[in-house]
Amino acid sequence: MSARDDLQRTLADIAARDGGLKSFVAVHDTAGAQRELDRALAHRGALQGLAVGVKDIFDTAALPSQYGSALFAGHQPRLDAAIVQAVRRAGGVVVGKTATTEFAFLNPAPTLNPNAAGRTPGGSSAGSAASVAAGLVPLGIGTQTGGSVIRPASYCGVVGFKPTFGALPTPGLKPFSWSLDTVGLFTQRVTDMARWASALSGRTWTSQGAKPVVGIAWSYPFGELTPSARLALETARDKLRAAGVTVKDVDLPAWVADVHKAHDAVQGWEAVRALRDEFEFHADQLSAVLRDYLRDAQEVDDRAYEQGQATAAAGRGKLQQLFDGIDVLLAPSAPDEPPAGYGSTGASTFNRAWTLLHVPCVSVPGAKGVNGFPMGVQVVAPVGEDALCLRAAALLQASFGH
Amino acid sequence: MSARDDLQRTLADIAARDGGLKSFVAVHDTAGAQRELDRALAHRGALQGLAVGVKDIFDTAALPSQYGSALFAGHQPRLDAAIVQAVRRAGGVVVGKTATTEFAFLNPAPTLNPNAAGRTPGGSSAGSAASVAAGLVPLGIGTQTGGSVIRPASYCGVVGFKPTFGALPTPGLKPFSWSLDTVGLFTQRVTDMARWASALSGRTWTSQGAKPVVGIAWSYPFGELTPSARLALETARDKLRAAGVTVKDVDLPAWVADVHKAHDAVQGWEAVRALRDEFEFHADQLSAVLRDYLRDAQEVDDRAYEQGQATAAAGRGKLQQLFDGIDVLLAPSAPDEPPAGYGSTGASTFNRAWTLLHVPCVSVPGAKGVNGFPMGVQVVAPVGEDALCLRAAALLQASFGH
Repeated sequence: MSARDDLQRTLADIAARDGGLKSFVAVHDTAGAQRELDRALAHRGALQGLAVGVKDIFDTAALPSQYGSALFAGHQPRLDAAIVQAVRRAGGVVVGKTATTEFAFLNPAPTLNPNAAGRTPGGSSAGSAASVAAGLVPLGIGTQTGGSVIRPASYCGVVGFKPTFGALPTPGLKPFSWSLDTVGLFTQRVTDMARWASALSGRTWTSQGAKPVVGIAWSYPFGELTPSARLALETARDKLRAAGVTVKDVDLPAWVADVHKAHDAVQGWEAVRALRDEFEFHADQLSAVLRDYLRDAQEVDDRAYEQGQATAAAGRGKLQQLFDGIDVLLAPSAPDEPPAGYGSTGASTFNRAWTLLHVPCVSVPGAKGVNGFPMGVQVVAPVGEDALCLRAAALLQASFGH
Repeated sequence: MSARDDLQRTLADIAARDGGLKSFVAVHDTAGAQRELDRALAHRGALQGLAVGVKDIFDTAALPSQYGSALFAGHQPRLDAAIVQAVRRAGGVVVGKTATTEFAFLNPAPTLNPNAAGRTPGGSSAGSAASVAAGLVPLGIGTQTGGSVIRPASYCGVVGFKPTFGALPTPGLKPFSWSLDTVGLFTQRVTDMARWASALSGRTWTSQGAKPVVGIAWSYPFGELTPSARLALETARDKLRAAGVTVKDVDLPAWVADVHKAHDAVQGWEAVRALRDEFEFHADQLSAVLRDYLRDAQEVDDRAYEQGQATAAAGRGKLQQLFDGIDVLLAPSAPDEPPAGYGSTGASTFNRAWTLLHVPCVSVPGAKGVNGFPMGVQVVAPVGEDALCLRAAALLQASFGH
């Protein structure tokens, strides 16, 4: 009964508050939500009755799946995405679909940022980040191909987690670039994230242990640190040191620049194939930004793609150089505070290399930029070291007093 | 015009001969095939007009997608799987959907074996293997989660290629186990395979170079070598040596047994989640073998799954031990000749460890078992060394005088 009441409160809350936020694009009615709850509670999972918002880039059999595109208005697939089934199997209740940019690319969703009035919530997982930030749901499901989890988490002031590539299932996700598309999650607290992500992935990502040694890079091949990015990293460094954590300055290996650049070719070549029909038959129903991207990406030939994949594989092969003498790396989650206005979802510059390397990343909220808007700090760990990544992130969030 | 005539001949051939083979479950009519051809020829790819059969575990927007299950009779998804789009983009013509076992598991497809009368063609990619073996199409698309490409290739006497995990795109494949599901291909000749697989993957998998040093293991933790498996390996050894190739006897590292065992937990845990709705709501429409499997697999807990994934990751981390002093490994493609009758698709015993390790494998036809039926010999190479794997496989096929 209590789970039922909680769920009705969640639905009422969304109905009352989401009109001004636009984080959801479809929400179950009372009967539909009750069905979801019954299905969820049939299993005794760690998410037991927890309300979950699912980015509308995933297929759902009981709610429309429109991928942020007019081309798929009212589209109703027959099958649930694997992550949706995993949510239910873990006891979670899918209450609705959250806004995504068009096909998880750059054309903005209508969502506002609950923690930065007049500024973008970021993208592409705009609705999942914003709905968690507004407290409408405790857990949101998103995806990252460039920076689509870590960036909106940074802008909205919530925790964003992009696990090791492949650790959460992608089947039933509308693909953009299959070597990059990674399922990620949003919560308010890292400790909740560790528990819930463990339940969804079947891994034990809650861990105890010695304080990790943290490295911070102050110079990036992606671009100069903005004053806000520098301030966020300095805040993290000072708070961690005050909490007794060893923090070292580190230099990134030169090849990180190559991996960053390689992301373009890998994503472009695959996107041309993943969205071939949309571009070929329905270009007029695509946004200009996506249409232009897909047109230009036709130029990425097999040779460039193969070179990009080889660069990525080489980077993964020498990943320990990135963690020489440290356990985890701190880096900006986003280049800056959320940009003003809604015309852009911001840049994935500080995310693309990590996404292509397949390493786990957590964006931890609590720092601010020079104008007082949210700035996430990103914890990066080696492939498969998701538990370590989350442990370090929990330490950082605790040091922020959050 | 010539491409058009070829295509019509292919359709006529399928119409005339597939009634007695049952390798296709859906074939385009003349107009549908012509539309596919027009779309394919809009791009100048390496597959230019090539007829392709696609396993009915992949979604196709222009043909039903029934996953070998009565539950999906007449199911018509809106989107093409990524590999289907990649085929078109490379200039290939999808002529029809080929028979799969139910959800790519063990319940046999109706397909016969064109090269072993009265014996199973294997599974789960039965139709793709058999249609290529019968010469109906030159290229078939399949998938392997246990041994579903290499095994039917062995039984049907064709080339089967399971590339490095993730090298060909899985979106739009009905998932069974997302850490294992691998897109694979069937052809008659390794040299064609290398060209066509390169076009689909965007990689250069056609390679020249020194003759690879080949290792053969004569003892396996998966089970004793049968007389037919031993005969096939001896034939391969003798033919390769006669062709001037260095062939060494090798011992498998002990941990290969652990990886083999870990496959069970990884597949079981994920299948329970991937097929949750089918099992929960439609168990009566599943085969007994799948229903029993999904019921028993509920017992695989998170701990067993995590341990299985950790064992797999550890194996991938020390993969070079498997190739110590050699370039590629030869192993049986299947335990034995195709089993008599149609009640079973045979065993994936000699495939599961390689599938979980994510290494590329090619099954090369040309050897025979003690009863004169086809026996494939499997070439196994390190992750990412698909070109090497195919080069060694081409050498082996040439040495067989095939």
